Amino acid sequence: MALIVHKYGGTSMGSTDRIRNVAKRVAKWVRAGHQMVVVPSAMSGETNRLLGLAKELSPASTTPEVMRELDMIAATGEQVSVGLLAIALQAEGVPSVSYTGWQVPVATDSSYTKARIESIDDKRVRADLAEGKVVVIAGFQGIDADNNITTLGRGGSDTSAVAIAAAMKADECLIYTDVDGVYTTDPRIVPEARRLHTISFEEMLEMASLGSKILQIRSVEFAGKYRVPLRVLSSFTPWDIDINEEAKSGTLISFEEDEKMEQAVVSGIAFNRDEAKVTLLGVPDKPGIAFQILGPVAEANIDIDVIIQNVSQDGKTDFSFTVHRNDYARTMDLLQNTVGPATNAARVVGDPKICKVSIVGIGMRSHVGVASKMFRALSEEGINIQMISTSEIKTSVVIDEKYMELAVRALHKAFDLDQEVAPAA
Amino acid sequence: MALIVHKYGGTSMGSTDRIRNVAKRVAKWVRAGHQMVVVPSAMSGETNRLLGLAKELSPASTTPEVMRELDMIAATGEQVSVGLLAIALQAEGVPSVSYTGWQVPVATDSSYTKARIESIDDKRVRADLAEGKVVVIAGFQGIDADNNITTLGRGGSDTSAVAIAAAMKADECLIYTDVDGVYTTDPRIVPEARRLHTISFEEMLEMASLGSKILQIRSVEFAGKYRVPLRVLSSFTPWDIDINEEAKSGTLISFEEDEKMEQAVVSGIAFNRDEAKVTLLGVPDKPGIAFQILGPVAEANIDIDVIIQNVSQDGKTDFSFTVHRNDYARTMDLLQNTVGPATNAARVVGDPKICKVSIVGIGMRSHVGVASKMFRALSEEGINIQMISTSEIKTSVVIDEKYMELAVRALHKAFDLDQEVAPAA
Repeated sequence: MALIVHKYGGTSMGSTDRIRNVAKRVAKWVRAGHQMVVVPSAMSGETNRLLGLAKELSPASTTPEVMRELDMIAATGEQVSVGLLAIALQAEGVPSVSYTGWQVPVATDSSYTKARIESIDDKRVRADLAEGKVVVIAGFQGIDADNNITTLGRGGSDTSAVAIAAAMKADECLIYTDVDGVYTTDPRIVPEARRLHTISFEEMLEMASLGSKILQIRSVEFAGKYRVPLRVLSSFTPWDIDINEEAKSGTLISFEEDEKMEQAVVSGIAFNRDEAKVTLLGVPDKPGIAFQILGPVAEANIDIDVIIQNVSQDGKTDFSFTVHRNDYARTMDLLQNTVGPATNAARVVGDPKICKVSIVGIGMRSHVGVASKMFRALSEEGINIQMISTSEIKTSVVIDEKYMELAVRALHKAFDLDQEVAPAA
Repeated sequence: MALIVHKYGGTSMGSTDRIRNVAKRVAKWVRAGHQMVVVPSAMSGETNRLLGLAKELSPASTTPEVMRELDMIAATGEQVSVGLLAIALQAEGVPSVSYTGWQVPVATDSSYTKARIESIDDKRVRADLAEGKVVVIAGFQGIDADNNITTLGRGGSDTSAVAIAAAMKADECLIYTDVDGVYTTDPRIVPEARRLHTISFEEMLEMASLGSKILQIRSVEFAGKYRVPLRVLSSFTPWDIDINEEAKSGTLISFEEDEKMEQAVVSGIAFNRDEAKVTLLGVPDKPGIAFQILGPVAEANIDIDVIIQNVSQDGKTDFSFTVHRNDYARTMDLLQNTVGPATNAARVVGDPKICKVSIVGIGMRSHVGVASKMFRALSEEGINIQMISTSEIKTSVVIDEKYMELAVRALHKAFDLDQEVAPAA
């Protein structure tokens, strides 16, 4: 008998028929002898419908008072889901009980619409499990110290599920979603892309943050921090497939990297076309210049990703960084009118039509020449590299947006990602 | 400055435009210097939609476990409403904050889907009012001793509003609804029906329980018990009508009967065609026979209304009572197969095509001859009376359903209810 957490996304909960299928699937796991906690999202479309109503009443306001009410409203989507799923389970003959975030309670800070989980009290949940009940817990939500309802932000149900699994030391947390696992890259761009049986949570973190939008990134951080085995798998398989087959399907995001990992140097190719590049040309190369440039940008709440400062010539240097494309106009405005003049920059130039392509792999740590192999592959396709950024387990390049698909396909082939790799013994 | 509670029904909350109008109306009361607590219902149709989803998953189940989940689901309707109304108020420049039932908290027993309020802690609400905020509280819901969400049953938001007004000793509780007050009878049957400026809560209790479905009956009981001045008024008047005019509109349900009541003997004619009559003929007239008959009926959870036992002849008596028409078949079955044989009844007969018509008036207490005037009016129309039931402030008759409209019109005329009565000095 194991303690298992299942998480089902909005598509899986999208209609009463689908909810009934979720119940049948969970019932199968119960009959196999497992203790089950289930975390469903709101029915698909519901969160948007609810927030749409709020927006009609207050189109632009982002005061804390309005944000508090948005959480009050949005949290109802998951509350309906847990009630419906508990009823569906009972109709299948499986004893079950549902809880909202505050009933557990899932304690969070007070950052409405993007709260962070601080602690989870699992006493009540454990008591129910001991009585043989399936416990259905509303994802996406919690309660702050003043009894206000909070939500965790888009995709927050993933984080709820992992946090609950961590608090309860669950044996595995299964995220049922509309893809059947994590791929070496997006199959829409590279048809040969292959599903990974296992990926380390560090790799998953890079894949997620670089645009593989399968899991909320915070849920992966949580899984890594608390060593929760996390599996991404399809909710579209028939509910009655063999449970042993189901338990091994999808992709396992594991923290036990040395034992079970596939031994590929590069596990996947991630990409992101949401960025824009800006450059200050000819700024004086003196101590403090980076802060002088980036301080005001950070103050304006603009997130910065890749940063490059070239070696200086004649006491002058060029300073480039990337921001989210939505922040491009604001950033250019700030640099041209404030930061540029203040730093005596010769010129400010920018380009929103860029993309970032990354190779990700925990094996890179111990393999030399991986980056150069990447650069050669791009060079062979005639793709110019504008910026380079590296970390222990990834190398990213910024290139012209129009070469993105070409670059991803070339790298996927160069690193043999279409070839199945035998797991280490 | 007064402390005022407003309650808005589902129709008033039916769209964002209507919610905006509610906010404008409340803002007007705030600007007039009042402290405001607002209790909205779910948006019209929402509770039915939510319970409809649940019903698709578990059509017939009424276990406590399912009932608990129904409350979990249904309570979200009001939670959305309070969030939206709080946002609409803020958009009008009125500081406001919303609370669910459990946040106040509104403590109830654990009778899911028909819970009763046990206590209300108004500390948090008072603190907000002191800070100049409008407090928006979800109607229809509460929390039991084990932190489970409960609901108060259909129309429960009326009871929530009155209970909150009682707990806070509010100066008046205004129930905004889709009728503009309490009438002497249903204007669809008697076009001359007249709106009452004032009615005693006892009369309202009889009017409500007898089928004037303006207010949930428990809200009137609450108002009477805690002496909360209660006003029923229209939510369809323009939000910007003069506040003094609005404050005097509708019907005031008052407990100060001796001072302000209109001095009519009969205040209104109520009617109800939801009942059915059953009779056990020729049962032995011995001690305990009533319990022997009605005990099994009560055990089957069938509510009984009017009960008549005729004087006995030859040691035998006839025993009649009325039940809700929905329970007619079950009741007949129970009497024919169980209770009848057990009590040696000669025969069981029944009639679902009856109705109950009642005259209601606090003045009846001190006036003789009111009932006989009623019987004469019916007799003049050739209407046969099948059963009679009386209380201090009402007299009800059970008659053939087909005479209902005729009876109501005749009684409305006989008691001069189309004539305005001057309030006592």
